[in-house]
Amino acid sequence: MTRMVRRLIPISHCNVCGTPVETKIPPGDTHSRAVCPACGHIQYQNPKPVVGSVPEWEDGRILLCRRAIEPRRGFWTLPAGFMENGETAAEGAAREALEEANARVQIGDLYTFYSLPHISQLYVFFRSRLTDLDFSPGEESLEVKLFTEREIPWEELAFASVTRTLEHFFADRKAGRFIARAGDIRPPER
Amino acid sequence: MTRMVRRLIPISHCNVCGTPVETKIPPGDTHSRAVCPACGHIQYQNPKPVVGSVPEWEDGRILLCRRAIEPRRGFWTLPAGFMENGETAAEGAAREALEEANARVQIGDLYTFYSLPHISQLYVFFRSRLTDLDFSPGEESLEVKLFTEREIPWEELAFASVTRTLEHFFADRKAGRFIARAGDIRPPER
Repeated sequence: MTRMVRRLIPISHCNVCGTPVETKIPPGDTHSRAVCPACGHIQYQNPKPVVGSVPEWEDGRILLCRRAIEPRRGFWTLPAGFMENGETAAEGAAREALEEANARVQIGDLYTFYSLPHISQLYVFFRSRLTDLDFSPGEESLEVKLFTEREIPWEELAFASVTRTLEHFFADRKAGRFIARAGDIRPPER
Repeated sequence: MTRMVRRLIPISHCNVCGTPVETKIPPGDTHSRAVCPACGHIQYQNPKPVVGSVPEWEDGRILLCRRAIEPRRGFWTLPAGFMENGETAAEGAAREALEEANARVQIGDLYTFYSLPHISQLYVFFRSRLTDLDFSPGEESLEVKLFTEREIPWEELAFASVTRTLEHFFADRKAGRFIARAGDIRPPER
């Protein structure tokens, strides 16, 4: 599931016992939390990891998906989505390629890592090898397609994390070595 | 705040309206979620990112903290803790050095990235430079201390992510180049 936006709705009730919560800094903590005055349960909120990959076919083309859902419907993206509990980042990245593009990939090295503090998300991309050409649009894609470097629709990419990852990828491939990179993405980039 | 274990308590109530939730796969989704039958709110749960760094002093020694809290009280760790909403991974890693060791660090390159699927956590370590020697134990540390490679208490390290990160670090430093690495950690490793 790639639903990229999950609205941050303020927590108003305890999710263990249902009592209205208080917002305060618990003893020994440094940040304000939703604390239950009845059962004491604290609801922590942390940035959500989004995991994906750069699926490369043996001829060097890259698999992109055109988004069928908001945000950025109609724009192109690398297969990526929210990491699920109980899976590894690499498993999540492979699952997303399968869900969005019915594509089987072999996940390789960690490649890019971006913080998006304004929406409390982390983007993580691995390099990957597409293992066959039997792909097709998943429920959240309008179209899935292989692109040479010159064919990449740079102006129609959905997210800055995708643009930056692909820019690094083609530069590194040209240079004959891939270097993992981390950075931050803030508005007006998206 | 480094509280490394936050018990995964089953969600039983909607945290928006307080109604008891149903556990089911929402339309268009692939995973079971806590769905509110009254207001429709879905509570997603995702792996939590833990961010930290390998603080290196100018003579090559590394700053470690001896944990004052469970789990692994009394064992040594690199300064690290749960990433907070609204911050970047690098900001979180710097904050943790300050909170756990009253230490100021300059965060450098991304270094290691581990998935711990059995506890739904991601560990991310950056390399960092300790900027001065005016450090001291924070609330969650019994002791903070600089270690040469030979002095590292390998048998008394708190977490596998810390052990692996330090092993890579010293090997890479010897080799004269640092390579970012990703991997998975599963039981019996901790």
